[in-house]
Amino acid sequence: MLRWIAACALAAPCWLALQAAQETKPDAGAAPANPRETVDRIVSTALRSPQAFASLERLVAAAPLRLSGSPGLQAALEWGRAEMERAGLANVRLEPCEVPHWERGDVEELALLDSGGEVLERFAVSALGGSVATPPEGLEAEVIEVRDRSELETLGERARGKLIFFNQPMDPTARDTFEAYGRAVWQRSVGALEAARRGGVGAIVRSMTTRLDDFPHTGAMRYEEGVAQLPAVALSTVGAARLSERLARGAPVRLRLRLECRTLSDAPSANVVGELVGRELPDEILVVGAHIDAWDVGVGAHDDGAGCAQAIEAARLIAACGLRPRRTIRVVLFTNEENGLAGARAYRDAHADELERHVLALESDRGGFVPRGFTTDANPTALSVLRTLAEPLASIGADNVKPGGGGADIGVLAPSGVPLVGLLPDSQRYFDVHHCARDTLEQVSPRELELGAAAMAALLWQVSERSEPLPRNRPSEGSR
Amino acid sequence: MLRWIAACALAAPCWLALQAAQETKPDAGAAPANPRETVDRIVSTALRSPQAFASLERLVAAAPLRLSGSPGLQAALEWGRAEMERAGLANVRLEPCEVPHWERGDVEELALLDSGGEVLERFAVSALGGSVATPPEGLEAEVIEVRDRSELETLGERARGKLIFFNQPMDPTARDTFEAYGRAVWQRSVGALEAARRGGVGAIVRSMTTRLDDFPHTGAMRYEEGVAQLPAVALSTVGAARLSERLARGAPVRLRLRLECRTLSDAPSANVVGELVGRELPDEILVVGAHIDAWDVGVGAHDDGAGCAQAIEAARLIAACGLRPRRTIRVVLFTNEENGLAGARAYRDAHADELERHVLALESDRGGFVPRGFTTDANPTALSVLRTLAEPLASIGADNVKPGGGGADIGVLAPSGVPLVGLLPDSQRYFDVHHCARDTLEQVSPRELELGAAAMAALLWQVSERSEPLPRNRPSEGSR
Repeated sequence: MLRWIAACALAAPCWLALQAAQETKPDAGAAPANPRETVDRIVSTALRSPQAFASLERLVAAAPLRLSGSPGLQAALEWGRAEMERAGLANVRLEPCEVPHWERGDVEELALLDSGGEVLERFAVSALGGSVATPPEGLEAEVIEVRDRSELETLGERARGKLIFFNQPMDPTARDTFEAYGRAVWQRSVGALEAARRGGVGAIVRSMTTRLDDFPHTGAMRYEEGVAQLPAVALSTVGAARLSERLARGAPVRLRLRLECRTLSDAPSANVVGELVGRELPDEILVVGAHIDAWDVGVGAHDDGAGCAQAIEAARLIAACGLRPRRTIRVVLFTNEENGLAGARAYRDAHADELERHVLALESDRGGFVPRGFTTDANPTALSVLRTLAEPLASIGADNVKPGGGGADIGVLAPSGVPLVGLLPDSQRYFDVHHCARDTLEQVSPRELELGAAAMAALLWQVSERSEPLPRNRPSEGSR
Repeated sequence: MLRWIAACALAAPCWLALQAAQETKPDAGAAPANPRETVDRIVSTALRSPQAFASLERLVAAAPLRLSGSPGLQAALEWGRAEMERAGLANVRLEPCEVPHWERGDVEELALLDSGGEVLERFAVSALGGSVATPPEGLEAEVIEVRDRSELETLGERARGKLIFFNQPMDPTARDTFEAYGRAVWQRSVGALEAARRGGVGAIVRSMTTRLDDFPHTGAMRYEEGVAQLPAVALSTVGAARLSERLARGAPVRLRLRLECRTLSDAPSANVVGELVGRELPDEILVVGAHIDAWDVGVGAHDDGAGCAQAIEAARLIAACGLRPRRTIRVVLFTNEENGLAGARAYRDAHADELERHVLALESDRGGFVPRGFTTDANPTALSVLRTLAEPLASIGADNVKPGGGGADIGVLAPSGVPLVGLLPDSQRYFDVHHCARDTLEQVSPRELELGAAAMAALLWQVSERSEPLPRNRPSEGSR
């Protein structure tokens, strides 16, 4: 099933020109004596002749909606192929795989009812990805609120027959918004499941954002075999506050939830792959990736159009600086990150015999904001190397390398021991736009996006030039 | 002329409540044993109960346009008074002064003409602040381009009778966009003046931004006595590229410039002032300020609505943490920063006998973006102290204190020797929005704005608590 077809596009003209230039200048690809100088050159090239934002604009024009299974995702794959060719990458190809196909449907309603069943007000909601539908006429029930796990545990029989309203805010005082997300997102992931286990009839989940506004933020949820599948929606934070106030009055609150979601047969899709072929060790591979699918709200400009544009741009910048990496830099736009990770697994399986020769995997999936550095699951020895390599990025404030995950897609490669690295942009704005209608081009700064790509290029280049690969993780390490 | 009237509003209820609390808890305002703990508390309070963005929303609703002399600026002053009272400040007052009154008028046209005088295309332009009008029918002339100062110097007789097109881009490779601005802004400040000195008839200035788009960015310009006053406009960067391409074809290019600007009699205005009165040394003063006026394009959300909201919020946060500063923290919303600095000079003159007891002046006027630290003109000894005080802000990445200016308004206080400090937000996005129609609320992140206010509060609080004031600058120091 996970066979792949190498479309092996011919190298594009600018790459050929580069190769020709290198034939007459044999030292052009040699390891730089001064990494700081090379990093500065990459950053200056990025700022002088940026391409990431223009590329992102083309993605959003061609495929504003690109959830797995949609025609938009197919258009996005073609965008990826065209952008890689434009960037002069070699071996550009689609590596097919099957992806889940869930559709939101046209109706999303959460209504507050009076005692006669009339609608008093409606809330801004968005079905969670993978949710089942309600009956066509909707599902009417009393709602009960839980503000944390302990309140959930003590619900007992009160949950039976109810809509469970999960209203634990993301902690606004967390300095890193991803920490706050990590502590609150269980509600979205397993809210419906936990509601079902307690006899509930549906889940309403406060949106994952620290901002108080009326945008519902969707996202993935999961069911388990043997547990009833309940419909689930994200509610805007303003809506959550209103609903909570209503409940605080003490009287029973009845709601009607109506969703038309449906899950269809798996659909064909693909990862998009292209390469800067290594000049000395072409079989040793640095993966740089992002995900090409996006939730069907907003246009996924930050999540993860930004990452896709940056991954391609990082490779292009290396070539644009007249550099050819010692090892192969492989750009991978993974399909189906948001609701399945099918692309990541397909890549892992199709390249199983190469994974021992993967020396780094770098992902950008935290928005196209100003870069601060990187997170990594690398062991202490490799972490120390990465910190040294990031030092020249102090000039743009992107030299912070700290322990953490690399990203969901490359996360599936962890068992192979390849060090995983994630671009670390400033986190303050990300959950303003994450999985909601605010995730638009207007929220992306071309300079910030480009600086992220430059930081990625700088790290990739330096790792590619090392005499030895980075120390790999042992099975007990990595896999954050 | 620069007399001021202290309106001395009664302390607002929450401030009274705070004082009452302190009477029963006499240690509440003592210097903290652990500054890190206090700074963390300020930051957490800011993130848990932010007020800066809501305050900024009210400003933009009440006074979207607030150029000096406009009714909007009067509305903004009332907003400032109300916000200070809401924040619990004492001695809230307007300190009157006169400000210039320039109006843009309704017509702004820069048109490319064919040989018959017909319009081929129009460019997006914005009159520079203070520009004179053209004749009502417009000014038609050939245009000539200069790309830097040296090209200007060699124009000679070719400039005579021409529109001079100043097209030196802001250097996109500068890591700090303010550096690039500093090197390019002479074109806007003195372009019309330099054109007049060479016999030109008008100035067209490439917008001060590294972004390539179709927003013209206005800003201040100046004339000199004895030199002809020429009309001057900012042209969008996309327009500048188009005009430059047209000129590169070699044939003469004729343009029509039409502006209706006018300068009226000076208008009444005021600085808005309020205080947290010091508990031990009330006569020693820390000024925290921003400017209340704004250019009449966009709504000045970042420039400098953000700074106004932050200055008030910084004081509010200190009180909200149950802290009462040892010295007085005085919030000043300066009027007329953009085209005159009349408010800054009025403050300096009205408080001349107090300036020796000003121990710090802190300004926020670089946008409400995520804070990175501060710039300061303080001498090395005071700089070293400020760096130590900023260390606890490493938790939010705002601990970078580096030499630089404090800001235009507090800059007029430099001769008094008071150390000047400017909030240093991340600079990458600022010139995307600066002085153009993109400077809207949607470009402001509530969290980023609030973190800037928290950083300011943390610095103010610590400086206020020191046993000795910061070392002052000698006349040879400061005044960057």
